[in-house]
Amino acid sequence: MRYTIQEIATAIGAVAVGDTSLTIGKLAEPAQATADDLALATSPKYAMSLQNGAALAAVLWPGAEWQEMGLKGAILPDRPRYAMAGMTRMMDEGQGFVSGIHPSAIIDETAVLGAEVSIGPLTVIAAGVSIGAGSVIGPQCYIGQDAVLGNNAYLRDHVSVGARVRIGNRFTAQPGASIGGDGFSFVTAEPSTVEQTRRSLGDRGDTKAQQWTRIHTLGGVLIGDDVECGMNCTIDAGTIRDTVVGDGTKIDNLVHLGHNVVVGKNCLLCGQVGVAGSVTIGDNVVLGGQVGVSDNIFIGDGVIAGGGTKILSNVPAGRSILGYPATEMAKQIEGYKALRRLPKLLRDFAALKKQVSGGETEP
Amino acid sequence: MRYTIQEIATAIGAVAVGDTSLTIGKLAEPAQATADDLALATSPKYAMSLQNGAALAAVLWPGAEWQEMGLKGAILPDRPRYAMAGMTRMMDEGQGFVSGIHPSAIIDETAVLGAEVSIGPLTVIAAGVSIGAGSVIGPQCYIGQDAVLGNNAYLRDHVSVGARVRIGNRFTAQPGASIGGDGFSFVTAEPSTVEQTRRSLGDRGDTKAQQWTRIHTLGGVLIGDDVECGMNCTIDAGTIRDTVVGDGTKIDNLVHLGHNVVVGKNCLLCGQVGVAGSVTIGDNVVLGGQVGVSDNIFIGDGVIAGGGTKILSNVPAGRSILGYPATEMAKQIEGYKALRRLPKLLRDFAALKKQVSGGETEP
Amino acid sequence: MRYTIQEIATAIGAVAVGDTSLTIGKLAEPAQATADDLALATSPKYAMSLQNGAALAAVLWPGAEWQEMGLKGAILPDRPRYAMAGMTRMMDEGQGFVSGIHPSAIIDETAVLGAEVSIGPLTVIAAGVSIGAGSVIGPQCYIGQDAVLGNNAYLRDHVSVGARVRIGNRFTAQPGASIGGDGFSFVTAEPSTVEQTRRSLGDRGDTKAQQWTRIHTLGGVLIGDDVECGMNCTIDAGTIRDTVVGDGTKIDNLVHLGHNVVVGKNCLLCGQVGVAGSVTIGDNVVLGGQVGVSDNIFIGDGVIAGGGTKILSNVPAGRSILGYPATEMAKQIEGYKALRRLPKLLRDFAALKKQVSGGETEP
Repeated sequence: MRYTIQEIATAIGAVAVGDTSLTIGKLAEPAQATADDLALATSPKYAMSLQNGAALAAVLWPGAEWQEMGLKGAILPDRPRYAMAGMTRMMDEGQGFVSGIHPSAIIDETAVLGAEVSIGPLTVIAAGVSIGAGSVIGPQCYIGQDAVLGNNAYLRDHVSVGARVRIGNRFTAQPGASIGGDGFSFVTAEPSTVEQTRRSLGDRGDTKAQQWTRIHTLGGVLIGDDVECGMNCTIDAGTIRDTVVGDGTKIDNLVHLGHNVVVGKNCLLCGQVGVAGSVTIGDNVVLGGQVGVSDNIFIGDGVIAGGGTKILSNVPAGRSILGYPATEMAKQIEGYKALRRLPKLLRDFAALKKQVSGGETEP
Repeated sequence: MRYTIQEIATAIGAVAVGDTSLTIGKLAEPAQATADDLALATSPKYAMSLQNGAALAAVLWPGAEWQEMGLKGAILPDRPRYAMAGMTRMMDEGQGFVSGIHPSAIIDETAVLGAEVSIGPLTVIAAGVSIGAGSVIGPQCYIGQDAVLGNNAYLRDHVSVGARVRIGNRFTAQPGASIGGDGFSFVTAEPSTVEQTRRSLGDRGDTKAQQWTRIHTLGGVLIGDDVECGMNCTIDAGTIRDTVVGDGTKIDNLVHLGHNVVVGKNCLLCGQVGVAGSVTIGDNVVLGGQVGVSDNIFIGDGVIAGGGTKILSNVPAGRSILGYPATEMAKQIEGYKALRRLPKLLRDFAALKKQVSGGETEP
Repeated sequence: MRYTIQEIATAIGAVAVGDTSLTIGKLAEPAQATADDLALATSPKYAMSLQNGAALAAVLWPGAEWQEMGLKGAILPDRPRYAMAGMTRMMDEGQGFVSGIHPSAIIDETAVLGAEVSIGPLTVIAAGVSIGAGSVIGPQCYIGQDAVLGNNAYLRDHVSVGARVRIGNRFTAQPGASIGGDGFSFVTAEPSTVEQTRRSLGDRGDTKAQQWTRIHTLGGVLIGDDVECGMNCTIDAGTIRDTVVGDGTKIDNLVHLGHNVVVGKNCLLCGQVGVAGSVTIGDNVVLGGQVGVSDNIFIGDGVIAGGGTKILSNVPAGRSILGYPATEMAKQIEGYKALRRLPKLLRDFAALKKQVSGGETEP
């Protein structure tokens, strides 16, 4: 696909300047750009690398002095980062999945496929499944009994969707995403050491053998519209009610959501986030990479947790948090700095104590 | 499946009261329950929500005053949480896997399948495999050469079992569970910087290039009876001897067990736990979500580690631990509280020092 | 396969002593070794266990007094740990994948397979793929459009390689390894709360609803020679340029590499490491289990990070680090020790302050 820079600017609602009939074949970083590329130089810092490449056209920022950069034409979007969404969508070549139903796919006769649904090779569609119009199911996927996918789903390879999972429109799943496993819910015949420890926080002198019996998973997973799931992420089904993921929420690779978790709308759950069972997360929450959330916690709307934060208690709306255990971000950073001064404080305190006790108070 | 509340009570060994011939179609949370549901209101707190639903029957607790809740009948189990295991097992609809050997499955002629084994579509069973009676192998699984599965195994889709893995009876594996990968074991021709750092804990001025050579994995994985493995978890094979998981141990989604790890009986390893190579874990150990264990560590029987704990040294039996690095739970919480007071302590100390040094000791 | 101890010693360049014509059938740990095994007793500590087994031959260390251990023959390598690489390679039985192209594999007619390539059952090879000579692709893998694999690749089952991923020679991938997913890159039409929080570190009073729009992934993944990828690991493709993994780097189970990450040569990334987008990692870096790296960080050559370290800022070459946030290893351990003394310091400080303020300075 080739575009003029005018076509690109028009598509993303930005201004094109200079020779707007210049055509480009792909996007490139400034230093690697050839004369056939549209260089992405969306800040003065990135624009300095234009001289290391051979771009004739670039995406800059409002008011950028493009002529001085040796360019023949430019696009000047108001919010260059947002413009990236539109430009990359135009240039995306995708995975090249072949349209139509591959003859090797195994589709139960009771499954209902909407108009223009594609099913990849060696994918299995179980009984009672419903897949909305325009959906593309990649190779080697499994869609379990009575699962529902809305319109325009896009599943790459090896995706697993369990029985009774219900998903809205425009769902995207990366390779190996796994939705609808049984919850990790076990119980002992007698109260377990875990139950005791939660009450006492103490050690246990006797560690009596206990066997774990499964609490079966009867609920499903309910996923809204415009949700994305990353590679090899795992979302457990709920015990009695559904595990829920709200509209517009994006879930990264290797994220784990336990049973009964409720995630609100437009959240970002970054790589390897782990959310234990029965946690409730509000809207517009951002959990950085490797954040962990203990079971039965509430996290308010708009909470932002930095990478690696371990959330062990409820978090009010609007809070920015960091650390283990999670603390307000600014306080946590103050704490980190104080901790670095602690070894010296211990030495200074010992000296002062000696001074005071020894009566060596200076005059 | 429909049951009377008497049938359910009998099955779980509990008392039914009121109109015990009432039939119910499914379990429900109190506020969502219809007149056809058995509401799960197993504590006074949950029972308050009965008024928001329409349940005629509920599971309560011993001595609960069910008539005052507007119910026509009730089940009063001694330990309601344990009763959940029996009730959910009765009501579990499962994945709806079709019985029998699917014609698209590829099964080596030397594989031995017990009575009433089901093999799902597009599953591959390699040479020399043995699968015990009553087992259900889901779609798109791979069972490697000479692997052994006991009776009544239940594997969902996309499960991977490597060559020479041996598993006991009643094994359950969620989608994407992967058992028997090669261990992460590499060595350099000369002593590596890692070996040096472990000795010195120091930085290294010169960072000489080193190439890593694989130590091949000759051992297998030996898994006991009644073990469960979560979605996309990974268990490496041992280097010379087997990696071992004891009877009754339950492993959650995205858990990682390295080569040569030995896990005892009836442990719970929660979501995203990571256990490095050659760790030995006792019986009845509970590792919370995202717990990490350094290589070559011993963890005694009955240890409980809170979510996010990083275990860098041996832990005696019966200990409850938390934090990074792992510390006794009560001490760790004391430490967290002290840390919050540290910035003020630093200021107070500076003031006191000035006071003492300046001779401003108050009379 | 049976070998004399002379054959093994010769293959690994070590000295054999005693009856070097003794044949052995497999390697074993000293206590489990039978008379048919070669016991691995590579240190005096391990050698003490020889008396619990029945080995006639063992791998020891230079100068070991093998006769006194009741052995008939021995191998005395200079660096026993490195010798393990050669010996285990000789004895590796592998997965027993059948050679050749399995008839159930679905291979696009435009794919180019080198000499002696094997393709396992139910694997899908998309259009334009190139696979180098001697490669073994296991069962149920997916190789996406225009992907390139070099010579002697070895992929186990359920491996996913996305479109346009390019991989060098001697690549190894464990079950479920997933390479080339779309990056986790989203943008809001207005500056998001995350962008604001990064600037202010503060909380946000108003948490305005925001929708996330995908920045599409146009780049690929470029992987060098001699790279290994563990079970269910995930490597995202780059946004504009490629995500890069250098020659000789080894990646463990459940590791996550975000979009645009550049990893140098001969690194070890241990189990569950997570590297956020646009991080650059030098050569010979070792990241222990569950290490996390924030986005846009630089990590210099030869850095070693202990298990669980969270790296939130750039790390100079040669540094050994530990903790959350990452700190020089020796300082971090000093900090941990100081922290354990903090509760007592708080009490002692209060006492001293009272003493000073109360004029109780002892004579």
